[in-house]
Amino acid sequence: MNTFGSTFRCTTFGESHGRALGVVIDGCPPGMDLSEKDIQPLLDRRRPGKAPLESPRREEDRVEILSGVFEGRTTGAPIAMTVHNQDVRSGDYAALAKVFRPGHADYTWLKKYGIRDFRGGGRSSGRETVARVAAGAVAMKCLERHGISIHGRIIEIHGESDPEPMEREIISAMEEGDSVGGMIEVTADGCPAGLGDPVFEKLDARIAHAMMGIGAVKGVEIGEGFHAARLRGSENNDQIDAAGFISNHAGGILGGISSGQEIIVRIAVKPTPSISRVQQTIDTDGNATEISITGRHDPCIVPRILPVAEAMLALVLIDALLEQAKYHDFIV
Amino acid sequence: MNTFGSTFRCTTFGESHGRALGVVIDGCPPGMDLSEKDIQPLLDRRRPGKAPLESPRREEDRVEILSGVFEGRTTGAPIAMTVHNQDVRSGDYAALAKVFRPGHADYTWLKKYGIRDFRGGGRSSGRETVARVAAGAVAMKCLERHGISIHGRIIEIHGESDPEPMEREIISAMEEGDSVGGMIEVTADGCPAGLGDPVFEKLDARIAHAMMGIGAVKGVEIGEGFHAARLRGSENNDQIDAAGFISNHAGGILGGISSGQEIIVRIAVKPTPSISRVQQTIDTDGNATEISITGRHDPCIVPRILPVAEAMLALVLIDALLEQAKYHDFIV
Amino acid sequence: MNTFGSTFRCTTFGESHGRALGVVIDGCPPGMDLSEKDIQPLLDRRRPGKAPLESPRREEDRVEILSGVFEGRTTGAPIAMTVHNQDVRSGDYAALAKVFRPGHADYTWLKKYGIRDFRGGGRSSGRETVARVAAGAVAMKCLERHGISIHGRIIEIHGESDPEPMEREIISAMEEGDSVGGMIEVTADGCPAGLGDPVFEKLDARIAHAMMGIGAVKGVEIGEGFHAARLRGSENNDQIDAAGFISNHAGGILGGISSGQEIIVRIAVKPTPSISRVQQTIDTDGNATEISITGRHDPCIVPRILPVAEAMLALVLIDALLEQAKYHDFIV
Amino acid sequence: MNTFGSTFRCTTFGESHGRALGVVIDGCPPGMDLSEKDIQPLLDRRRPGKAPLESPRREEDRVEILSGVFEGRTTGAPIAMTVHNQDVRSGDYAALAKVFRPGHADYTWLKKYGIRDFRGGGRSSGRETVARVAAGAVAMKCLERHGISIHGRIIEIHGESDPEPMEREIISAMEEGDSVGGMIEVTADGCPAGLGDPVFEKLDARIAHAMMGIGAVKGVEIGEGFHAARLRGSENNDQIDAAGFISNHAGGILGGISSGQEIIVRIAVKPTPSISRVQQTIDTDGNATEISITGRHDPCIVPRILPVAEAMLALVLIDALLEQAKYHDFIV
Repeated sequence: MNTFGSTFRCTTFGESHGRALGVVIDGCPPGMDLSEKDIQPLLDRRRPGKAPLESPRREEDRVEILSGVFEGRTTGAPIAMTVHNQDVRSGDYAALAKVFRPGHADYTWLKKYGIRDFRGGGRSSGRETVARVAAGAVAMKCLERHGISIHGRIIEIHGESDPEPMEREIISAMEEGDSVGGMIEVTADGCPAGLGDPVFEKLDARIAHAMMGIGAVKGVEIGEGFHAARLRGSENNDQIDAAGFISNHAGGILGGISSGQEIIVRIAVKPTPSISRVQQTIDTDGNATEISITGRHDPCIVPRILPVAEAMLALVLIDALLEQAKYHDFIV
Repeated sequence: MNTFGSTFRCTTFGESHGRALGVVIDGCPPGMDLSEKDIQPLLDRRRPGKAPLESPRREEDRVEILSGVFEGRTTGAPIAMTVHNQDVRSGDYAALAKVFRPGHADYTWLKKYGIRDFRGGGRSSGRETVARVAAGAVAMKCLERHGISIHGRIIEIHGESDPEPMEREIISAMEEGDSVGGMIEVTADGCPAGLGDPVFEKLDARIAHAMMGIGAVKGVEIGEGFHAARLRGSENNDQIDAAGFISNHAGGILGGISSGQEIIVRIAVKPTPSISRVQQTIDTDGNATEISITGRHDPCIVPRILPVAEAMLALVLIDALLEQAKYHDFIV
Repeated sequence: MNTFGSTFRCTTFGESHGRALGVVIDGCPPGMDLSEKDIQPLLDRRRPGKAPLESPRREEDRVEILSGVFEGRTTGAPIAMTVHNQDVRSGDYAALAKVFRPGHADYTWLKKYGIRDFRGGGRSSGRETVARVAAGAVAMKCLERHGISIHGRIIEIHGESDPEPMEREIISAMEEGDSVGGMIEVTADGCPAGLGDPVFEKLDARIAHAMMGIGAVKGVEIGEGFHAARLRGSENNDQIDAAGFISNHAGGILGGISSGQEIIVRIAVKPTPSISRVQQTIDTDGNATEISITGRHDPCIVPRILPVAEAMLALVLIDALLEQAKYHDFIV
Repeated sequence: MNTFGSTFRCTTFGESHGRALGVVIDGCPPGMDLSEKDIQPLLDRRRPGKAPLESPRREEDRVEILSGVFEGRTTGAPIAMTVHNQDVRSGDYAALAKVFRPGHADYTWLKKYGIRDFRGGGRSSGRETVARVAAGAVAMKCLERHGISIHGRIIEIHGESDPEPMEREIISAMEEGDSVGGMIEVTADGCPAGLGDPVFEKLDARIAHAMMGIGAVKGVEIGEGFHAARLRGSENNDQIDAAGFISNHAGGILGGISSGQEIIVRIAVKPTPSISRVQQTIDTDGNATEISITGRHDPCIVPRILPVAEAMLALVLIDALLEQAKYHDFIV
């Protein structure tokens, strides 16, 4: 299932080394200004090959809007966007055709589908997130009209929370042919109360779904999150006075529905599984072998996941916002 | 949206103090033995009023199957099950009609719907989970036929991980009119490789969605979870030898697809928001007031969430298992 | 799939001779007056055993609302309704356990599910429509608030379009152990322009889906319908002048979207397949045999399908109406 | 909603005069041979500008597969296909910017979305069906592996059912600046028993949905269809003997589930609304005006709808076939 959302629905496609990646957005409100200029800056943020600590793969990631926009405005028709792949060196991956990389989807994809595009992870590559960021850019544009803004930041790399030690951890891992993980916090300001649902489709459940659906994310928490398990009710409850909530331990969501406070989400990102250190693995015939992954990879994927996490939060919120609109005639 | 699942779809209904709670399961495989005896024991586990540390509300929680079973076997028709409410003292809640309880959905529900069933939390009550446990019991029965079993355990209460200190924490909180949270681990054994999807509908994304959709859950992690953010790739990757995976840091899911290893999920449960300690709040007119909640409540909701978390994992897995079956003709 | 609708979603359950039939409505707008009194009259219209030409099965069809209503108003929580079966003479059907009735779902259900509830057609019985009519009653109540009303009428029985000959056809068929079909027209007045979608989810496509999803319906047409195939564009186009559309050949839908004119739908209902005349068939072992169906059946099902067709049109329209609301902030 | 299907899901995009049309297929079985050569011939059949009686717009309709195929086989990843528009003379349509063409979606689209791409009907153009035919070609390839084949034929043009008079009707209409409609029959051979669902998602309901979702289709019938309304049960029932069904009045579907017989569908196509005869209409300010449509249009759209109707039937059947697979472990 490559579709996300129920009202603002994004269907993505494309593989790491295929012709193009893309997304079709169905349900974007009509009459909104939109052009490639709204999308490109966010893709540029996500793009590889910009910094010495990032994968040297060079992709322009030039987005093209194929449909759904007429004279600079959305029409209500589906918005298709594509990004063509350019720097595709599939030869790099021929050696991986018959071996499973530890920590990657190689083994499980083959078990599921019985066939595998082994070039750069195929559909399971982080490159798939290009389409999410493009869709997220459109979602953010819609959210802005309603005064909602999304902000993400890296709060930890390999246990360090200050910029310099963070960078040191990445460099040190890279030098040792290894990789490191980290944590990201994403918040949303300006979100009205009333978004989300009380049972299965709680706003936090949708956010957890969205975030854990990003490759390499292994944990999600809202507000106090895991720390809440160590608090008492008197410490964790957000009391209220005439001016509003006194605290925000809940992270902006109560009973699955937004409270009007800032929405606070944190995610745990695992260390990049592609490392040049020798690892034990098996080939597709089940024979034991060793592997050292020498392609173009980030020693730490956290910075590149940051815009993806923001995009996913935007996609959750625009969906919930449009759904809530259906009650507007009924709630005075 | 009160429906969970795409192939094994459960639609639940009912409020804390309404006539009945229930669920309709659509998509349960036909030809499977099923009777109330398969459901009741799991409801009994979740039932309140059994132990001194639990809410004294007395409910028999007697389940009745209304449809979908003929001569003791499922027919492919939807299975409707109801549990009628008995010990409903709505009078207890009259005082809450015009005030928002901190940490509850009272305020946000009203913001969303413009009307609120204030009796015991209405639809947002933990009592809603009766229906989930009933549905989960059916899912578990299906999973058993495929050799999959689900196990949950409490791993922490208010920071304590041994039974006796755990109980002490609960008693101490109760005596002080307060409450405590904790952590639960749920695992699945026997799950075949190949379940889940590579992009948005990753198996871990669905599990996160399911778990965070339980009231009071504020965090979800898979395998190493948040700890993975502090590991290096060489520590976190699960290497493979001819006998299979050497470790299971991934918690049984790689690239969103099950690997055949044990699936390991942990969730953080916040302390029960209902406490008798005086808290600041506002009434429905926005005036500041104070509240002390004296109804029938658990000082620690963790033990009662345990069977719910197991049920939700069962619902995710049966759904993914049935979906995967659609490829059976294609994968040799 | 026993769910209809995407925003106003109805999930139905129950078999002809099971304990109860029912429906869960998810997505009904909150704050709307609702009680059993709004539902019962429509069920009474559909009820068997009222007239000499109808099945003598006696069912009170007493509806009970189990959830979703608080102090006489909808709350936004799912509305569950049940109707318990009473006059269940399963013994009547024992003879049918091993034989396939021509024109019924007996054979195909068994092929699909491998097991069959043979009592009165089980889930495939027309009795299933009790739940649709109950849901439709709620939908009609919502539509009324928006000035939309639904009207159905029988326009033909076995080729006759005047009441007296219609009745004669039914009596004559009954006397000969046979049955007759007919045609129904259902219209909606007051529907605003803008409902429906331009591509797959055209309003007429949804109506066709809804109507053909009623047992015994074999054809659906909108406006001129099949007759349009024999017209020229200059005859079939609805021209417009300053006062609005000059004609309504389109039946109120253009390009899949409502035009604000009356919506006009016609359906063809096949003759009841249950007849006492001897028919050739096979048993579940594949052996040829004969069958004469002597249970309690209507010689003409058209009058009882009438309220069902109205209900289905109401369900389509309320769904489309609520969906369209999501654009309200965007379209001035 | 621009997505069709639940298991084999097609999301289409593109406008008549936009950059490209396309489709993303999600849920296509993996491991199947697929290339542009499987798609192109069906697009060529649908293509305009081939015959004197067809629109002279010249489009190569060259399909490109962007994703989901690796080394000539499907991988389980979404298959995106695009067709770029070439012969786009938007200038032709400038005159239509402010006027509503009778019989077209111009008026209703504007009412729905508040903005309109007036170039050639925008998203509501018949050109949108390029994407359906491309998706249908993939579906047919899947169906072939299971022995299912789809056949369509024109059975009537403006009341005539023989080829020569049919052509005469089209020529005569064209000469008079008018247009004609007609009827198409589409059948499926080799379909196994057991596809479809017993209640809302009956196979015939899905077919009706699919067919009525094609622009210009105003009626759908299965088997005897509307004629069944004039039959008696003894005439319409399909009796069975040891060799199988003796007749096929039902059109291959009983109780919403395929019977294993040929599936027979007929649709009514209205006359093309674009005619050069002068018609009354209004402009976007509501002022009365006249219109004579002189662009490039087919005097009869029936031949070009034929491959679309086949494609839609294929999409319904592959979806139902893959869904049914989920029961394979349960039904022996």
